[in-house]
Amino acid sequence: MVGYYNLCIDGKTNEAIMETIIHEVGMRDGLQVEKAVVPTDQKIRWIEALILSGVDIVQLGSFVHPGKVPQMADTDQLFAHFSQPGRKARPVTLSGLVLNEKGLERGMTCGVEQFCMGVSASDTHSRKNTGMSTPEATERIMAMAHNAVAAGKAVQVSVQSAFGCGYEGVVPEEKVLEIVRRYLDAGLRTISLADTAGHAIPDQVERLFGSILELDPRAECACHFHDTYGLAMANACAALRCGVKYFEAAFAGLGGCPFTAVAAGNLCTEDFVHLLQRMGRRRDIQLDKLVATASETGQFLRRTLPGTVHRTGPMRDVRPEAQAAQG
Amino acid sequence: MVGYYNLCIDGKTNEAIMETIIHEVGMRDGLQVEKAVVPTDQKIRWIEALILSGVDIVQLGSFVHPGKVPQMADTDQLFAHFSQPGRKARPVTLSGLVLNEKGLERGMTCGVEQFCMGVSASDTHSRKNTGMSTPEATERIMAMAHNAVAAGKAVQVSVQSAFGCGYEGVVPEEKVLEIVRRYLDAGLRTISLADTAGHAIPDQVERLFGSILELDPRAECACHFHDTYGLAMANACAALRCGVKYFEAAFAGLGGCPFTAVAAGNLCTEDFVHLLQRMGRRRDIQLDKLVATASETGQFLRRTLPGTVHRTGPMRDVRPEAQAAQG
Repeated sequence: MVGYYNLCIDGKTNEAIMETIIHEVGMRDGLQVEKAVVPTDQKIRWIEALILSGVDIVQLGSFVHPGKVPQMADTDQLFAHFSQPGRKARPVTLSGLVLNEKGLERGMTCGVEQFCMGVSASDTHSRKNTGMSTPEATERIMAMAHNAVAAGKAVQVSVQSAFGCGYEGVVPEEKVLEIVRRYLDAGLRTISLADTAGHAIPDQVERLFGSILELDPRAECACHFHDTYGLAMANACAALRCGVKYFEAAFAGLGGCPFTAVAAGNLCTEDFVHLLQRMGRRRDIQLDKLVATASETGQFLRRTLPGTVHRTGPMRDVRPEAQAAQG
Repeated sequence: MVGYYNLCIDGKTNEAIMETIIHEVGMRDGLQVEKAVVPTDQKIRWIEALILSGVDIVQLGSFVHPGKVPQMADTDQLFAHFSQPGRKARPVTLSGLVLNEKGLERGMTCGVEQFCMGVSASDTHSRKNTGMSTPEATERIMAMAHNAVAAGKAVQVSVQSAFGCGYEGVVPEEKVLEIVRRYLDAGLRTISLADTAGHAIPDQVERLFGSILELDPRAECACHFHDTYGLAMANACAALRCGVKYFEAAFAGLGGCPFTAVAAGNLCTEDFVHLLQRMGRRRDIQLDKLVATASETGQFLRRTLPGTVHRTGPMRDVRPEAQAAQG
């Protein structure tokens, strides 16, 4: 990291600032929409680099039917690999997305440490995804979460389409909070709001997470933003302001669907970490490792990926004395 | 606009919200870095479309030496064209950037309505740009602004590299505020802070503009952000929150320098207007015209331009009854 800009603009680290947790979801929410199926050994190398970078949670894949999403067919294999002693170069939590009981069963046997599961607040989206209405899907997820917790696993429950839906448009905030209340009542406190369609705007982000923290100040809020309308970073900043702790993000801003005109990448991990470090937070994360992985992935996929810092390079220290003078 | 999504998420327009003014700078800050020199008649068509869209101020070009920046060589001609009666389809202010007395003289004779001029808070940047230190350049700009005001022109004064410098790194906030105090003391109240290097972060944006409004609550603050590290929109949101009124932005997010590895486009006009409209503001601006101009420009320049909404399309009303139900 020698030569890197003193990323913290006031030269100090504010120790009092609540820790911000990075949940890297590019291996799942990024690669699942890529036309190319990335070979397992290539995935392993990227996961190793992501682990080494110092992010906190790495999502290895999702337990979906391999025929439906071939990009995720090796998820069990990846967990089995990294569950073996010595395979994680650093302490890191490995998460996996499960959509149904069958997926949960698979995840239980291959070493998932944190289960992510959720319900869409949009009935149309819920039916398209699961064949069930939102209330039906909620019952199913509650039962699955119960089983995972009983097995001693960490569980993050989410509300998808929490900020609007590509099919339905506006999603009433009360529908989101109804699901959140169910989660809280069941003692499920790690709660993610996912902006599946990219409809979120900063005011709405602050309002919704504010409502959750009012319902239960002990809630551990997580956010998941897509950049469909150029607002992922602005929404993440709003989430930072209102006390959200977990940030789901994808290296290189992966996640844009190559099959449609709508580019909808995730919040870009290295762009967000670059910002955090300039705010004096998470200086422990090795930004250069994230940037290198993002660049390498762009070369592998043979296209320019959406993130910014992997293309511009992080801010560098061009005249150290100018900063020393700041104190 | 029929069929467009009800962009305001709560379905209401908050009349009480301070007006936000859009200053479209793509014809200057965007095109000046393009390899291709855009023919004057093509520029005229884009300017016509931008005027029709309903943005408030359109910057037609800068008065620099045509040998140095051939992309801006027709600036006088563009002003002469749009100064003729009937050439502006709507009431709009035409602004021009001037760097020195010679430029001011040219602008005075061809119909500039608002002069933009500024000083860099970074000595290194100032010397590279003007051959003068920051204090020397400040004296010169004060004299130029005085002359423009005396001639009855609107004037916007700016501080460049206000949030950091690509050469010097950190720029002390006191250096920025020193220049701002000089402006305010001279009665120059429309003051822009330009993030020339893209170093700004949201907290810093709120702090600096907050300091200006503390110095003089009547200051009319303007901002100018580049997306070098993926933060232009987040910084614009911070500026919105702290009372900034004027937003400089470029259609299609133009401004990335094609000669270097660093993509550094401006805040994208249509992405920002899309956000404003979802917040219930500036519903009078015709987003579709901005989007069409951005798309056409991408075709003309034969590359994917950085903005988002011109690629994804604005949010559309996919099920109006879902919104009607919101009230």
